[in-house]
Amino acid sequence: MTSSTTTRVLTGITTSGTPHLGNYVGAIRPAIAASRDPSQQSYYFLADYHALIKCHDPAMVHQSTLEVAATWLAFGLDTERALFYRQSDVPQIPELTWYLTCMAAKGLMNRSHAYKAAVQENADNGADADFGVTMGLFSYPILMAADILIFNAHRVPVGRDQIQHVEMARDIAQRFNHHYGDYFTLPEAVVDDQVAVLQGLDGRKMSKSYGNTIPLFDDEKKLRKKINKIKTNLLEPGQPKDPDDSALFQIWQAFATAQQCAQMRTAFADGIAWGEAKQQLFELVNSQLEEPRARYQELIAHPEQIEAVLQQGAERARAEAAPLLAKLRSAVGIRALG
Amino acid sequence: MTSSTTTRVLTGITTSGTPHLGNYVGAIRPAIAASRDPSQQSYYFLADYHALIKCHDPAMVHQSTLEVAATWLAFGLDTERALFYRQSDVPQIPELTWYLTCMAAKGLMNRSHAYKAAVQENADNGADADFGVTMGLFSYPILMAADILIFNAHRVPVGRDQIQHVEMARDIAQRFNHHYGDYFTLPEAVVDDQVAVLQGLDGRKMSKSYGNTIPLFDDEKKLRKKINKIKTNLLEPGQPKDPDDSALFQIWQAFATAQQCAQMRTAFADGIAWGEAKQQLFELVNSQLEEPRARYQELIAHPEQIEAVLQQGAERARAEAAPLLAKLRSAVGIRALG
Repeated sequence: MTSSTTTRVLTGITTSGTPHLGNYVGAIRPAIAASRDPSQQSYYFLADYHALIKCHDPAMVHQSTLEVAATWLAFGLDTERALFYRQSDVPQIPELTWYLTCMAAKGLMNRSHAYKAAVQENADNGADADFGVTMGLFSYPILMAADILIFNAHRVPVGRDQIQHVEMARDIAQRFNHHYGDYFTLPEAVVDDQVAVLQGLDGRKMSKSYGNTIPLFDDEKKLRKKINKIKTNLLEPGQPKDPDDSALFQIWQAFATAQQCAQMRTAFADGIAWGEAKQQLFELVNSQLEEPRARYQELIAHPEQIEAVLQQGAERARAEAAPLLAKLRSAVGIRALG
Repeated sequence: MTSSTTTRVLTGITTSGTPHLGNYVGAIRPAIAASRDPSQQSYYFLADYHALIKCHDPAMVHQSTLEVAATWLAFGLDTERALFYRQSDVPQIPELTWYLTCMAAKGLMNRSHAYKAAVQENADNGADADFGVTMGLFSYPILMAADILIFNAHRVPVGRDQIQHVEMARDIAQRFNHHYGDYFTLPEAVVDDQVAVLQGLDGRKMSKSYGNTIPLFDDEKKLRKKINKIKTNLLEPGQPKDPDDSALFQIWQAFATAQQCAQMRTAFADGIAWGEAKQQLFELVNSQLEEPRARYQELIAHPEQIEAVLQQGAERARAEAAPLLAKLRSAVGIRALG
């Protein structure tokens, strides 16, 4: 049970890839830290329904669910406090999706950035506006609204590209409240500009789609190899280097204490060799990943343990979702006869 | 269990009004007769999710569900043989709806007659194309596809206006089969042109939207009153009358034996008075509705009995739907870890 003064914070995690350093720094680490805040109740869910929109490879959906769940657990997510569950284990979500579908204006979906981008791309290619567009892509904001509203979440931490979807959830919730009564809390998008966006091997944003990532839980040898591949310039040992123009330093910053940052700045000014800097970065990152990596390997070797944790989370999630859904069913007119 | 040679026939019943004589003659009576065919397994469901698309009045959704269920039971639907359930009691349906949503092309929905009619009406009124269009109206064919495909129904008896939706269900099923393997039977729409379309009090098709209906289970007095209101012409007693130009005779035909039809034709030729013809029609219709009416009143007075029947049906429906849905989940990549 959450008390009425508790802030409910909900985070969806898509399950269509292997977690990398950028995911950790940008999403996993801050989310796990936030989940320890006693004034908030955190909800983390593996968004496997969302994964189906773009990923039609069942093995990848399954493997990614395993890896993402293992990653969050390996970093010490407190699943006694936080609710950690798989979206597809909560049947209240697709049911609520239908009620919201009946309330959502089609015009609202027409304005979705993701849909408009697809239409624009088709226009650029001289194709039909809706070429290749599935109803999954088009109506995905309604599913996301159901994810949020089924727990009446107050806050939804998102990247800038997702703000619009939280606003759509508000809009749909408002329409429902207007028609049927005051059932939904209006959720707010929370964008944390303080969170580091990690650069990848090539200096661009670290992203699966650029193929420039450093996977979180490769073994030491592979981690070292990846770190050695970080793009640097041609400056020789002894020549001063600019930390603020260095992907290597940027990654260092994301893992180092303030003191370690200052030391590395000095080392850059003193002309540290790139090889030495990479060695130090490897040691720093590896020292922080060593323990979680061992836990991760252990978990991956025992998927049934992850499944058990997810089942416990699902049970709690369903128990929380059921009373609200029962009220919503009754509100729209779906009730037991007699 | 249905054997592999059994034809599965699925019929949805919308729950947004009070059943009238036209519903009985055009849908209920033939469906109940068909359900006695030993070579077929019948599925009848109260489409309360569909009702939500147009009906935002919870009391009406609830009352209509009660009345429609009571009506089918009063006419002797064999719920031991046929599956009779409420759509909203089968959580596999909204879940499958999402999987199909990810497979359905938006372009397919754009071509739906119901959606195009709404767009045309907006155009005629100089309004935005999607003015007043909800996502419920737009994506309703996907829900209908899930209704059909969750039981792998072979045949779907529909009116002409619904043929397209069954074709869309085929199309979506084919896409799913193509991507993930051969899970779905391709359903066929069945249009029975033999079924009588009953005329209403004013001679137009009997329809809730024309306000020209004769309710099925009003008491005798009201039934007589309604029948007396059937539009006739000014011919006097003794003047020959044309049965084929008479709403009264058309309703007679829908309830009478061949012999009774012949007798009434003769009576028309002999110049039967309209009052006398109405008296005979009342007696014929009333004789056939008397018993079901009593059962209906009894059922309406004991809604918990209807609920119990629906719960039994829902249990059977869920038990049939669950194994297929488990296969589908696994097919798209949603499986237990370990």
